[in-house]
Amino acid sequence: MEPLLARSVRLEDDGVHILDRRDFPFEKTWVRCGTVAEVAKAIEDMVTQSSGPYFAALWGMVLAAREARGLPRAEARAYLDQAGQLLVATRRTNNHLRKAVAAVLAHVDANDDLEAGALAGAKAGDERYRSRSRRLGAHTAELLPDEGAVLTHCWADLYLTETVAAAQAMGKRLRFLCTETRPYLQGARLTAETLGEMGVDTTLITDGMGAAVMSTGDVDVLLTAADRVTMDGHVVNKVGTLGLAVAAHAFDVPFLAMVQAPDRLAPTAADVPIEYRPGDEVLHTLGRRTATDRARGLYPAFDVTPPRFVTTVVTDRGAYAPHGLADYYVGDVHD
Amino acid sequence: MEPLLARSVRLEDDGVHILDRRDFPFEKTWVRCGTVAEVAKAIEDMVTQSSGPYFAALWGMVLAAREARGLPRAEARAYLDQAGQLLVATRRTNNHLRKAVAAVLAHVDANDDLEAGALAGAKAGDERYRSRSRRLGAHTAELLPDEGAVLTHCWADLYLTETVAAAQAMGKRLRFLCTETRPYLQGARLTAETLGEMGVDTTLITDGMGAAVMSTGDVDVLLTAADRVTMDGHVVNKVGTLGLAVAAHAFDVPFLAMVQAPDRLAPTAADVPIEYRPGDEVLHTLGRRTATDRARGLYPAFDVTPPRFVTTVVTDRGAYAPHGLADYYVGDVHD
Repeated sequence: MEPLLARSVRLEDDGVHILDRRDFPFEKTWVRCGTVAEVAKAIEDMVTQSSGPYFAALWGMVLAAREARGLPRAEARAYLDQAGQLLVATRRTNNHLRKAVAAVLAHVDANDDLEAGALAGAKAGDERYRSRSRRLGAHTAELLPDEGAVLTHCWADLYLTETVAAAQAMGKRLRFLCTETRPYLQGARLTAETLGEMGVDTTLITDGMGAAVMSTGDVDVLLTAADRVTMDGHVVNKVGTLGLAVAAHAFDVPFLAMVQAPDRLAPTAADVPIEYRPGDEVLHTLGRRTATDRARGLYPAFDVTPPRFVTTVVTDRGAYAPHGLADYYVGDVHD
Repeated sequence: MEPLLARSVRLEDDGVHILDRRDFPFEKTWVRCGTVAEVAKAIEDMVTQSSGPYFAALWGMVLAAREARGLPRAEARAYLDQAGQLLVATRRTNNHLRKAVAAVLAHVDANDDLEAGALAGAKAGDERYRSRSRRLGAHTAELLPDEGAVLTHCWADLYLTETVAAAQAMGKRLRFLCTETRPYLQGARLTAETLGEMGVDTTLITDGMGAAVMSTGDVDVLLTAADRVTMDGHVVNKVGTLGLAVAAHAFDVPFLAMVQAPDRLAPTAADVPIEYRPGDEVLHTLGRRTATDRARGLYPAFDVTPPRFVTTVVTDRGAYAPHGLADYYVGDVHD
């Protein structure tokens, strides 16, 4: 069964419908965006996250093309440019948005019919992301034991659902433990819900319990996504990954990090600025104050795991040692 | 200034008053217990925790002695025995309660006036715990840098407040980072509030951020209490300690564990059963459901840090290497 979050952005006749992840799974509501401006607002308001903004930008560009219907070609093309800038500006650190807009515009420029081009570009971008995630999932599933327990952190999105689907197709019997992932609780809300939907036996732990469950032999493999992997094997992912990776290393649990491809624009960790989000978010839980007002909060959104704590980086082209990522691009002519 | 939690159980004419830690610091309410039975109920209901039950049991025994006023000595003594059993039964894994009751009964048996004996015993037990914590705090403060950042986990109670008071008296300028300590949020509620009360610059992080802040050089020392330290140097403390200790070791941050004394009844970690609390607590935050209902929760309340990840164990008699704890008892005739 395909879980709800695997297809949480949809193009319909009346606009783009985005599953609201902010109250998920307690509420399962869809936000309808009738215009590209409303899509941008929804992305900015954190209605969706992870790969969600990528898909929302793809389909948002189709809405923009509809809005430009009837305009002369040059004006319509300029309108799409503006729409793309609007979408990209919503989350400045997110490369996904730039890629989504570029994918649509490339097809627009290659097509006489601007609206048909936008639709073809969005479909191609959608399929490209899904098929790469599918290959990544298949390569990852091959590395997992036939039976055992996987610890994961935060929400690995399609990488996770494709891995689980592939492992299930291979007949593997996996249990999952997942961290709740404060402050947003992506693990408690998105990951655990989705694994449950897929019929996986799922146990939730707090973010401080990872080392404990690994030290007692209850975990066979640590598996997370990576927001970025540098060419020299540093894994940049949701804060908390580093602590789990270090503990996995200490207790001989392999750590697999999933990414579609290592980042050629980031030779090493110094090339990746770490985003600090408002510390206030640490002082709250789902909108409610849960800390004293005598302290400030600190929220480094990501951490950097050095290659010595990484066993394997799994990509859409297979598995690589963290020091062997240059091989990913050998013989390659484009990204 | 003495923080509120340093004296959160008080004997008054109308009973024992216990600061309610369940909603602290959002509410600062005191539960009045007019009888020893009400004290036992309050301990059982988790009104107080950490060293709180110890102090509550001491003063609860004084209430019991008051209740026995006018009874023949033998009957009064039997009443105290029953009261002690009632208190000890509230938390079966807590050695503190047994010690508190024994401290009071020893003075009762050495005193012609049963009520005066109970009061003297409670005062002696109170002073003994406080003076040992004071010595522990002074020894710990000596090991801290003159200026720098200390990372702590959970709520180290009087060990923490005495350490901070001693460091302040020595003119040391320390900042603290503390983990929020899910699921109960002792760090966000008790530790951060109390450090703030003591005028300490305090920053709160989630339980997954410890490795990140240590890896970037933002922490000079990791400092936690220990519920128990085995004679061979294993530190048993609130779950989450192990992950922080392993990360501290990986990033060359010293880890100091505080305990009044190592536990002679626990030669090694196998002698310490780990308490598993209801997993449901992981699925909630301050009483509100914060996780999907598709997963179960797992809550190992403590974890065990092997001596290879412990730099120093600080006791009321000074600092010891984790492999040198036998020295604590050299020349000792009693615990």
